Amino acid sequence: MRVAGSITELRQLRRDLQGSIGFVPTMGALHAGHLSLVEAARECDHVVVSIFVNPSQFAATEDLSKYPRDLPRDLDMLRTAGVDLVFTPTPEMMYPPGYQTWVDVEHVSQGLEGQRRPGHFRGVATVVAGLFNLVQPDFAYFGQKDAQQVAVIKQMARDLKFPLEIIVIPTMRESGGLAMSSRNVYLSPDERRAAGVISWALRAISTAWDDGEREPARLRELGLAVLVTEPSGQVEYLSFADPDTLRERQTASDDPCLVSLTVRFGATRLLDNMLLPASLNTREGLTSTLGVSPSG
Amino acid sequence: MRVAGSITELRQLRRDLQGSIGFVPTMGALHAGHLSLVEAARECDHVVVSIFVNPSQFAATEDLSKYPRDLPRDLDMLRTAGVDLVFTPTPEMMYPPGYQTWVDVEHVSQGLEGQRRPGHFRGVATVVAGLFNLVQPDFAYFGQKDAQQVAVIKQMARDLKFPLEIIVIPTMRESGGLAMSSRNVYLSPDERRAAGVISWALRAISTAWDDGEREPARLRELGLAVLVTEPSGQVEYLSFADPDTLRERQTASDDPCLVSLTVRFGATRLLDNMLLPASLNTREGLTSTLGVSPSG
Repeated sequence: MRVAGSITELRQLRRDLQGSIGFVPTMGALHAGHLSLVEAARECDHVVVSIFVNPSQFAATEDLSKYPRDLPRDLDMLRTAGVDLVFTPTPEMMYPPGYQTWVDVEHVSQGLEGQRRPGHFRGVATVVAGLFNLVQPDFAYFGQKDAQQVAVIKQMARDLKFPLEIIVIPTMRESGGLAMSSRNVYLSPDERRAAGVISWALRAISTAWDDGEREPARLRELGLAVLVTEPSGQVEYLSFADPDTLRERQTASDDPCLVSLTVRFGATRLLDNMLLPASLNTREGLTSTLGVSPSG
Repeated sequence: MRVAGSITELRQLRRDLQGSIGFVPTMGALHAGHLSLVEAARECDHVVVSIFVNPSQFAATEDLSKYPRDLPRDLDMLRTAGVDLVFTPTPEMMYPPGYQTWVDVEHVSQGLEGQRRPGHFRGVATVVAGLFNLVQPDFAYFGQKDAQQVAVIKQMARDLKFPLEIIVIPTMRESGGLAMSSRNVYLSPDERRAAGVISWALRAISTAWDDGEREPARLRELGLAVLVTEPSGQVEYLSFADPDTLRERQTASDDPCLVSLTVRFGATRLLDNMLLPASLNTREGLTSTLGVSPSG
């Protein structure tokens, strides 16, 4: 495994890679969820991973400085996972003095996380555009857990005509059902146990869908009823949206639906989501619903 | 010469091109200035030209519908010039339903043309990003005449890390000194004659610079004195700016300076510019001053 610590090195090492390239952009603090993306990317001739805690996607009030970082451990995990090339730029490399270009995905960035984290998806879209141009992958792998992020990047890749496909890999969960996230380290043992309620709510909603319930208001009521059984969690939103536009579903429909929610435990915001019907929560279902092929 | 009328065709034909790619994006209505870009691009193994009148860079009040178009003539000219591949998308291909991604180059887009044409450079940067991703050139060729456009695209390419170099080719002029432009067809014979004053003003400024004058206010005064000799022209601005940041020069400096101006004759806005010292107005001087290599 080669590690490129600068853009110059990355460009040189990238030129040496022939054949198809699978790319997994990460912010480090890797867990089994990231490794499942790497494992999927091994279908390509080469796997490139970036580790970059992107400042421009954190608001001033957010946890940039205390975001978990452990590069030696991350590199060990990636080496073991069979990665060919890791790119570890500094903020000064990605945003040199005079930096001033921003990629804005207007509508899909608006609701849900975008509404609560102003500028977040502008930072995400911008850094991913730069990484795509540097790595020039044929396939880019993203986790279902950040479903709105996937929707934003899909829209950007489609609109700006990036010559790549976006593959979406199902969320990995801890034994209690909690979706894996680098931010889970912020949770106390009690909070971590309590946070299991999020996946219970998703499963309750999915069961009702399977039994024929399609009314978003009814499904939301059901999910909230489960969530309130854990009073230490504060629900920020529970959304039923079109998986492509992320527009909120107002009426009953058999079309696939993205259920997503954010629940706060103490200072930690936990995200989770699920496609309905639940049979879509596979690589194939997620990729055809949330992913993208190059236009044309 | 192949002509790709759709994104699918373009991607297919692009895949067949091996070796280095030189790209000349145009809005058609080709003239000798465009052909000088094509001629320069022939240093690459293949030359790709796009013809696309980009709606998103025209304000509602501007001349989108009457912008000159003559595709058969353009294609004849490009065939004769030795172009390999021409891409002629429709607006619906570049901006399909649901399109919502915009590339914003914040500071360099502000003054000069950006100030008078709100949203213009956002449209330019966005469409060029898409074209770069479709054509995947190694070198992209732009004319000096739209110097702020070059500065915006250079900044975007640098910031978003497009793997290409930007080459800047000197402005071509008609015999009376008027910079070639597709919009010159809007001029009456009298206006065309009168517009020669623009290049006289630039030459007067350059002569003063050669004689040691560096004070922007003095150089501006001198240029305006020449311009007012043609009362049918209305000067919108005459700027002395840093060629990289486009910030207006306030004080005397020996550093290279971009003199640019817009003069209105009737309903037609005419742009022109020159680097100081005048020795920089060559491909090499322009490219090292206004162009860019990939970062790193």
